[in-house]
Amino acid sequence: MKPLLSLILTRRLSSPLVAGTPLHSNNNYTSVVAPLRRLHRPAFAPSTPRLKFQIPQTNKKKPEKMSTDATTLKGQPLDRAALDAMLRRRLFYTPSFEIYGGVSGLYDYGPPGCALQANVIDLWRKHFILEEDMLEVDCTVLTPHDVLKTSGHVDKFADWMCKDPKNGEILRADHFVEDILEQRLKGDKEARGLKVEEKEETDKKKAAKKKKNKGGVEAVRLDDAVVKEYEEILAQIDNYNGEQLGELIKKHDLRNPATGLQPTPPVSFNLMFQTSIGPSSNLPGYLRPETAQGQFLNFAKLLEFNTGQMPFASASIGKSYRNEISPRAGLLRVREFLMAEIEHFVDPEGHKKHARFHEVADVELAFLDRHTQLSGSTVVKKQTIGQAVKEGLVDNETLGYFLARILLFLKKIGIDEKKIRFRQHMDNEMAHYACDCWDAELHTSAGWVECVGCADRSAYDLSVHAKKTGAPLVVRQRLEEPITIEEWDIAIDKKNFGPFYKKDGKTIENALLATTQEQRGELVKQLEENGKVVIDVPGVNDGKVEVSKDLLAIKWVKRVENVREYTPNVIEPSFGIGRILYSLMEHNYWTRASEGGDEARGVLSFPPAVAPTKVLIVPLSSNKDFTPEVRKLSQKLRSAGVSSRIDDSSASIGKRYSRNDELGTPFGVTVDFQTLKDGTVTLRERDSTRQVRAEEDKIIAAIKALVEGTKTWQDVEGELPIFEGQQEVEVVVR
Amino acid sequence: MKPLLSLILTRRLSSPLVAGTPLHSNNNYTSVVAPLRRLHRPAFAPSTPRLKFQIPQTNKKKPEKMSTDATTLKGQPLDRAALDAMLRRRLFYTPSFEIYGGVSGLYDYGPPGCALQANVIDLWRKHFILEEDMLEVDCTVLTPHDVLKTSGHVDKFADWMCKDPKNGEILRADHFVEDILEQRLKGDKEARGLKVEEKEETDKKKAAKKKKNKGGVEAVRLDDAVVKEYEEILAQIDNYNGEQLGELIKKHDLRNPATGLQPTPPVSFNLMFQTSIGPSSNLPGYLRPETAQGQFLNFAKLLEFNTGQMPFASASIGKSYRNEISPRAGLLRVREFLMAEIEHFVDPEGHKKHARFHEVADVELAFLDRHTQLSGSTVVKKQTIGQAVKEGLVDNETLGYFLARILLFLKKIGIDEKKIRFRQHMDNEMAHYACDCWDAELHTSAGWVECVGCADRSAYDLSVHAKKTGAPLVVRQRLEEPITIEEWDIAIDKKNFGPFYKKDGKTIENALLATTQEQRGELVKQLEENGKVVIDVPGVNDGKVEVSKDLLAIKWVKRVENVREYTPNVIEPSFGIGRILYSLMEHNYWTRASEGGDEARGVLSFPPAVAPTKVLIVPLSSNKDFTPEVRKLSQKLRSAGVSSRIDDSSASIGKRYSRNDELGTPFGVTVDFQTLKDGTVTLRERDSTRQVRAEEDKIIAAIKALVEGTKTWQDVEGELPIFEGQQEVEVVVR
Repeated sequence: MKPLLSLILTRRLSSPLVAGTPLHSNNNYTSVVAPLRRLHRPAFAPSTPRLKFQIPQTNKKKPEKMSTDATTLKGQPLDRAALDAMLRRRLFYTPSFEIYGGVSGLYDYGPPGCALQANVIDLWRKHFILEEDMLEVDCTVLTPHDVLKTSGHVDKFADWMCKDPKNGEILRADHFVEDILEQRLKGDKEARGLKVEEKEETDKKKAAKKKKNKGGVEAVRLDDAVVKEYEEILAQIDNYNGEQLGELIKKHDLRNPATGLQPTPPVSFNLMFQTSIGPSSNLPGYLRPETAQGQFLNFAKLLEFNTGQMPFASASIGKSYRNEISPRAGLLRVREFLMAEIEHFVDPEGHKKHARFHEVADVELAFLDRHTQLSGSTVVKKQTIGQAVKEGLVDNETLGYFLARILLFLKKIGIDEKKIRFRQHMDNEMAHYACDCWDAELHTSAGWVECVGCADRSAYDLSVHAKKTGAPLVVRQRLEEPITIEEWDIAIDKKNFGPFYKKDGKTIENALLATTQEQRGELVKQLEENGKVVIDVPGVNDGKVEVSKDLLAIKWVKRVENVREYTPNVIEPSFGIGRILYSLMEHNYWTRASEGGDEARGVLSFPPAVAPTKVLIVPLSSNKDFTPEVRKLSQKLRSAGVSSRIDDSSASIGKRYSRNDELGTPFGVTVDFQTLKDGTVTLRERDSTRQVRAEEDKIIAAIKALVEGTKTWQDVEGELPIFEGQQEVEVVVR
Repeated sequence: MKPLLSLILTRRLSSPLVAGTPLHSNNNYTSVVAPLRRLHRPAFAPSTPRLKFQIPQTNKKKPEKMSTDATTLKGQPLDRAALDAMLRRRLFYTPSFEIYGGVSGLYDYGPPGCALQANVIDLWRKHFILEEDMLEVDCTVLTPHDVLKTSGHVDKFADWMCKDPKNGEILRADHFVEDILEQRLKGDKEARGLKVEEKEETDKKKAAKKKKNKGGVEAVRLDDAVVKEYEEILAQIDNYNGEQLGELIKKHDLRNPATGLQPTPPVSFNLMFQTSIGPSSNLPGYLRPETAQGQFLNFAKLLEFNTGQMPFASASIGKSYRNEISPRAGLLRVREFLMAEIEHFVDPEGHKKHARFHEVADVELAFLDRHTQLSGSTVVKKQTIGQAVKEGLVDNETLGYFLARILLFLKKIGIDEKKIRFRQHMDNEMAHYACDCWDAELHTSAGWVECVGCADRSAYDLSVHAKKTGAPLVVRQRLEEPITIEEWDIAIDKKNFGPFYKKDGKTIENALLATTQEQRGELVKQLEENGKVVIDVPGVNDGKVEVSKDLLAIKWVKRVENVREYTPNVIEPSFGIGRILYSLMEHNYWTRASEGGDEARGVLSFPPAVAPTKVLIVPLSSNKDFTPEVRKLSQKLRSAGVSSRIDDSSASIGKRYSRNDELGTPFGVTVDFQTLKDGTVTLRERDSTRQVRAEEDKIIAAIKALVEGTKTWQDVEGELPIFEGQQEVEVVVR
């Protein structure tokens, strides 16, 4: 029985660089097909904010639309239009290609937005990559078709789209069904005389809405049974496929308000931007929809770089692309966006413990678990992550560790802790490979927005790529104690097998070797009973092939293993940087009106660490005598590692400070005639507008301590003389 | 004559946000059509390294191919294969999608490459953006067709491509012609018994070459006249268009060595990756081939952000894309690459002076001007930038200022100054809009490689976008002294003009208003002579339209202007970060062989500021007693802002240091049994492998000083006791 022996040896000696069947693989993913749109879309994905709030038994408004309860930093109602106007005026962001009419879903960041982004990314890199020795990689955006075919994106990364037959308007089918049914329910409530859960709308808005809704149903009372049916549809809107959405449109006669017509039946629209690589157009490719795939493909190299040690994490910061059907939510839903993703590779055995979990065990999070959501409530439970993992609310320590670290990061950059919650995905919401998934959601004027996803992707990705390419994306762990394996081993008579089956020989052999232990048990019975086995070999004959016992042996063998081979599981914290930046701007925005000042004087109270510019240097006037002092200050601040900006424009001091309040500049230094006499300058704090005055070097030291966070403004006021000599001019800057 | 007056007023009162004809525009670009491939391609562009060395009268080898004279940091001949193997083994970079077979021209950066890139970008941002208060923007990669149509990329950003009729191989036409002619000239030299300017090739390489060259001409003597003709073709290879390249292929019977056949006639291949934006496929778009266009489109907003002050610069760091026909040069020619570009906007009047020029006037650069190149020489001239601008070698102060700043940046990150030269573009090499253009070229194993381009783009881009969109991409400068303008003013009789020409009225009116002063002078003559004018109006009638004097008045008017309106010129320093990184790795590479050590022990002597990791922490062994000390050290270094990495793998100390020499880690700290007794650790310097020993806090202070550049290793050796207790084990790490 030589062939049998050699087959066993071949398997045992296979190096990690040769494809082989893992001996103890832990691919605990299933082959269940994911619902359309769910596949590989981290929680914060621009396309799926609707997913985050699914309440089967009720008809509560989805959180995205609860725009009326958003507040400023000081707790006043937030005027989003005023904030957006300010952010655009100050060039935090601006529509791309605006002089060409713009392209929806594409935005550019101007200087303050760009600096804010760079500072947040810098803190992210320190908080995650440096703190945990993660392996950062920078992979290409261009991705060939085969990779995304294997990962499932080519087939499944799509939304359902339909078209208005008259005006050609393109609609996202699920959004369309949802909008029309919600409208009808609202009309019903009005007809019943119930107060619609919305604040007073201005006449202007009402008029605009009316126009949009022409043909829509207004104040029409529905049967109770119809109301119930609509509510049930809305509760599970994410479960319908295209055909079902089409049926809903027909059954309930859903019409586009703009034309009064039913849209065409939904068709699948893949969200990836397609292109072709190289001159011969024979290599179709896509712009990546996530940075994760590049990290998975490099797994074996990264493991080797990490000298084979597990667990470890890779990380990547870069642009991803999704060709949204109809993006209309400003910075919250865009077609090109910056992601920061971590892939933490962990041994699935041993309950995914984390060595540093104890460091965060006492961190308290606001949890909204799936059971609470299913019961129709959105009341969060505050609990330490230690307790949550202990109780099984959060599946494992590694996942829990990252949830806590995500919270700490968000707080560090200036996100309002009261506006953070962690919402668990419901079973029908998760991608099919995920074990557990939580979103960090931030509350904004668009409701609760998923900004960070944290999923346990199991072994799905590594497994499918390994299967497709034959690359061994596995960990080989030397066992401290060898283990004894007993199992069915299958061997063919190499000498006669090939000649007998000719061209199909290799295919049939592979089919035999791919059988599971359970199947082999069955085959042994067949051999004993019939002297042959019948196996499924797709593509050969009619798919069934007989193999006689002369060509095949299946034996119960026992052997000792020194190495355990497994496919790691992946915990993936995935950050949508653009959404975080927008939330950060909202959370730190307020107007001086809340302190009795000018309504129009906006302030962005960014923490110094993320503020685009740390210090504004303002000469009292454009008098040239101030220039040397201003230059010296700027140079000294630069040496101290503090970014500053000079504003020597002719505007008044008040105007210049006001402009920088809107830019979120935390400190201001004024150079005046006193400076020229005694070398003292004033230091102003943005939020309180209070000032101190001292010698230049003392002020610089104070600024450095404030920016590094070693001192507070109160400390500084305690150490340096308060300055009240100069009143700020309250001028509105336009 | 009311209509006339109102027209003048309209023009004078037009706000900067309303389109208008600039009164004194300085668009000193011409409308000459750029040669194919030249348009908008900064000097370091992956596609054009050939351009940089054009010697009409000689047949010197192009520098790209002079791979034999590259040296290591220590002056030894550089073994590129060994270096590349090391860089890939250490995961500085790796082919993208390698387990799927890879895609040519796409590479991923692994952890050390990624950190090196981040550090270089960080220094770039400090050196340029912060130092000069540049306005950083982050614009989208996705760009709609219209923008790139206007900029000229849709029509002109292309290479000539031909195909082998038998094996389908795709060839870049100019490279193909060049290669075959150079081969023939080489064969001729061999036949004449002249030594070919190449080092001995190994037998293996020769065999490989022979195979590739099958069908190629070997050692065949050519007529003197043919030699001369070939040399002349090669000298101006960049001047040929597709048709001419096709003629050369036919005339000289140039055949693909692989098949012995002439390739098909060249066709134009646009280098932009195409895609479509949105679901309806009606918005064709491209991946940007440069970051510049986004900056130009935002010009008006940036100027306003800068409170209207000139000059100012914008800057952008981001990916760009070029679909190279056949990329084969590793990191030096890729399809997706990181760029850092500055657009410095300057008033074209006043000789483009720069306020800080005096700060760099004494910086000495190695210049290779166009005249030297045309004379067939590559001998550089060393000169201060002050002198170069004074003599007119470099066109203006702003351009000169940036050339010097580029040099200072390259030196700061660790580029070998001896391997930097500034090469001027020749007239036929520049894009048609450029006034002057210099490349910073770095010498590598691939010869002189253009890594930074510094072009004066004149007013071209702003002008074409303004013309297309009507957006006023201009500066309005309040004049200290009003000026009096006398010029031809044109006015139409609004009341009768429209009704007379009906639907064409507006088009004809615009054509009239778009006339130049010179044309108006001619029109006045026509009016006087014929009582009517005939003007060109494309698309109306047969393109000629008559306008009678009843509908039109042209008068010589005089008025006072308080505001000067002009289109700024742009100086564009444009950095190819990937090429700079690769050069940086070559310039800092050497092996211990040069000091009598092991040939295989590679070292990357990066300056601490750019080194991927600053400090390696090495416990003597995996003894667990070392763990608390190692963790404490790591924590203290992090607090000091110094990135470190622990290597507690089981490899020997020597092996671990050797691995980190290859990673470019400048310092190493060893924790041993002595540490546990007295708290001292050793500090090792990478290049000398010398060590000092002192208490932990002293060592940390020393490291901080070394990384920040305030102390040298010599200083540290002078202050702390030398440690010679432990011999490094010379082990080769594979």
